[in-house]
Amino acid sequence: MDAAEFRKRGKEMVDYVADYLEKIEKRQVFPDVEPGYLRPLIAQCAPQDPESFEDVFKDIEKIIMPGVTHWHSPYFFAYFPAASSFPALLADMLCGGIGCVGFSWAASPACTELETVMLDWLGKMVNLPEEFLAGKDGKGGGVIQGSASEATLIALLAARTKTIRQVQSEKPELTEAEIMGRLVAYASDQFCATLGTTPCCSFDKLLELGPICNKENIWMHIDAAYAGSAFICPEFRHLLNGVEFADSFNFNPHKWLLVNFDCSAMWVKKRSDLIGAFKLEPLYLQHHHQESGLVTDYRHWQIPLGRRFRSLKLWFVLRMYGVKGLQEHIRKHIRLSHQFEHLVLQDERFEICAKVVLGLVCFRLKGSNELNEALLKSINGAKKIHLVPCHLREKFVLRFAICSRTVESTHIEFAWQHISQLATDLLKTWVQNHHQQ
Amino acid sequence: MDAAEFRKRGKEMVDYVADYLEKIEKRQVFPDVEPGYLRPLIAQCAPQDPESFEDVFKDIEKIIMPGVTHWHSPYFFAYFPAASSFPALLADMLCGGIGCVGFSWAASPACTELETVMLDWLGKMVNLPEEFLAGKDGKGGGVIQGSASEATLIALLAARTKTIRQVQSEKPELTEAEIMGRLVAYASDQFCATLGTTPCCSFDKLLELGPICNKENIWMHIDAAYAGSAFICPEFRHLLNGVEFADSFNFNPHKWLLVNFDCSAMWVKKRSDLIGAFKLEPLYLQHHHQESGLVTDYRHWQIPLGRRFRSLKLWFVLRMYGVKGLQEHIRKHIRLSHQFEHLVLQDERFEICAKVVLGLVCFRLKGSNELNEALLKSINGAKKIHLVPCHLREKFVLRFAICSRTVESTHIEFAWQHISQLATDLLKTWVQNHHQQ
Repeated sequence: MDAAEFRKRGKEMVDYVADYLEKIEKRQVFPDVEPGYLRPLIAQCAPQDPESFEDVFKDIEKIIMPGVTHWHSPYFFAYFPAASSFPALLADMLCGGIGCVGFSWAASPACTELETVMLDWLGKMVNLPEEFLAGKDGKGGGVIQGSASEATLIALLAARTKTIRQVQSEKPELTEAEIMGRLVAYASDQFCATLGTTPCCSFDKLLELGPICNKENIWMHIDAAYAGSAFICPEFRHLLNGVEFADSFNFNPHKWLLVNFDCSAMWVKKRSDLIGAFKLEPLYLQHHHQESGLVTDYRHWQIPLGRRFRSLKLWFVLRMYGVKGLQEHIRKHIRLSHQFEHLVLQDERFEICAKVVLGLVCFRLKGSNELNEALLKSINGAKKIHLVPCHLREKFVLRFAICSRTVESTHIEFAWQHISQLATDLLKTWVQNHHQQ
Repeated sequence: MDAAEFRKRGKEMVDYVADYLEKIEKRQVFPDVEPGYLRPLIAQCAPQDPESFEDVFKDIEKIIMPGVTHWHSPYFFAYFPAASSFPALLADMLCGGIGCVGFSWAASPACTELETVMLDWLGKMVNLPEEFLAGKDGKGGGVIQGSASEATLIALLAARTKTIRQVQSEKPELTEAEIMGRLVAYASDQFCATLGTTPCCSFDKLLELGPICNKENIWMHIDAAYAGSAFICPEFRHLLNGVEFADSFNFNPHKWLLVNFDCSAMWVKKRSDLIGAFKLEPLYLQHHHQESGLVTDYRHWQIPLGRRFRSLKLWFVLRMYGVKGLQEHIRKHIRLSHQFEHLVLQDERFEICAKVVLGLVCFRLKGSNELNEALLKSINGAKKIHLVPCHLREKFVLRFAICSRTVESTHIEFAWQHISQLATDLLKTWVQNHHQQ
């Protein structure tokens, strides 16, 4: 395929993606396929000779789409939102076209420098303490990781390296293994200090944890993977109070800030802590600017060596939505979760299981776990909407997460009517069965 | 931005990317900017109100492009190739549009199933032993990681977990920390068993290492990040002999197989070894098929939880190039590296520093390291082509890597003429300076 054909096919693909997202509501949110559905539809080996774009293109609807769970359907209320927006898709096309691998400043200066500045923009949007920003000569700064898990791992490894060096300087007779055997990572049952846990969007008390960590010289990492995006709204920023005690902080714009996966934003107060743990300097990656202290080589901040030009997505989204546009998006989702909460509360058969703070509602039928498992099975079996459950203090609970960028009040009403009807049907059978027993 | 505007802007972006790649030769391969160039060109904070696409779009040429190292220029001979092709760009647009997060089978069955089948296709292309393939009921299989570093880390962690459990079952009195302190990871100065090292593309002797590893019950991981793509050509497949002794194998289609970053292919003989180390089962990620043993939940195979639909890139590229098209690409690169090697050998001032096996030529002026450092400085200062150096047995060596998809014989000739002329100029001054001293 040459550039001329790419122009033609690229435009067809733009239309396909626009059609897909514009009409996604008409697709069944969860697929009908059974495990192993795809292999028989596909050749056993790669073809020897090239196939045409048309051949591949027609297989998208035939082979791929029947097995897709439509995360951007307004009837998708499972897990947490996966961000998606048109500006981010445009930026990703540019990212692919440039196709640089930004492991060092010299490998593509724009890739590194835009990332540093975008993380400063984003840090200011959630009002992070100045120490986390790079600015012109700060000691902190931000980096884009692939996921919150990677950010947590990086923080853990940096903390471990820092602590081992410190202990070794005090007690040089101890081996690294001996020190490691004595290290402790404190965590709740969601790990590290979390703002907005996945099961029920609960918040750890940073203002209590933070001072203890600082006093005891414990690295504090805060994971706000989902909730972090909400902190761009002043009325939710108080949930981040206590971040000033932390050593590192992370949230995922790829969850709730309309930046397509992957874009996990991580900040540290002392970049030297990360670099100390991961520095890698073979000659082929050295360049004459690095001695100056002026440049950032992001390969020292992460597990992989290679990295894409992901800050373009942030740049496009932050500029083309503006802070106000993004705040509107967050506020709409939170308004819709409260709408659902109110609908649940009006029905005496149901209960709300955790405080609704952001875009997640945890609810269940008053009754046994089995009853609620049956309700979820009935909901996901009907495939008109899609939810996943969680456990809260041994109770089986349904999670209703506001996810899609295009979800509106009417979808929430539909979802509730549907759940309510399925509950009525279920309870009829359930009572009969119980009577028979 | 709504779907209608995306249709318009998306097509403009397709043209921009096509223009960029079609005319990339006319851009200076390495940028003129100094560290910190970007920050003054950009606002200090994200805008409150949305900006138009035009505003953002015109800043690409104004702010971004002046700081881009053009990895796809046919004058780029640095590092290793970063794969790029039009079919991969199209697939990535689709990947972004679908925007699913495939951490489990149920999260998007197509995302998981296409990946498993594509890794089988690719495994067959390099003629991996059957045990590494998933097939319908194999114990092995493949996964797409973000980078070779992640694949190595995964292999290391899986090996560690497996060994610790084994030792614990034999000596239950030992703590995990005590066992860890005694574990050894054997590596050369490139780590693990490597096929095609980055400095000089050398090859470890798998046929000697493998039997020792198997006998001593040592996990053998093979990293063929760059070289692996060449094994799709029967004439280079012998370089992979010995892979039958390995537990895990990895190479990067995103380097040399025309699949845009990121797409690092990893295979294991026993998927249970990975899953044993990383299994994570909160209720919200469980689904009713997982107990059946029929499905793959790729979150257990990797560090991150989230994952994009990256196998689409493989599917598009393998089908639209065909095995033959990809073999041609590899063979062209290797032919060009030998062309460059011959040019170097005809000039008595120069020497070749490592056997040219694939697409990398290591060469230097006969003389001191300082002389060669000066030559590289002069080459990269002129910015007509771009190279990086390496150290081989204390010698400072220039690496000439065939990188661009569109590089041709004429570019090699130009590059050599240019290097040769700069060497002539340099040697004149160098001799004069030596005389004066």
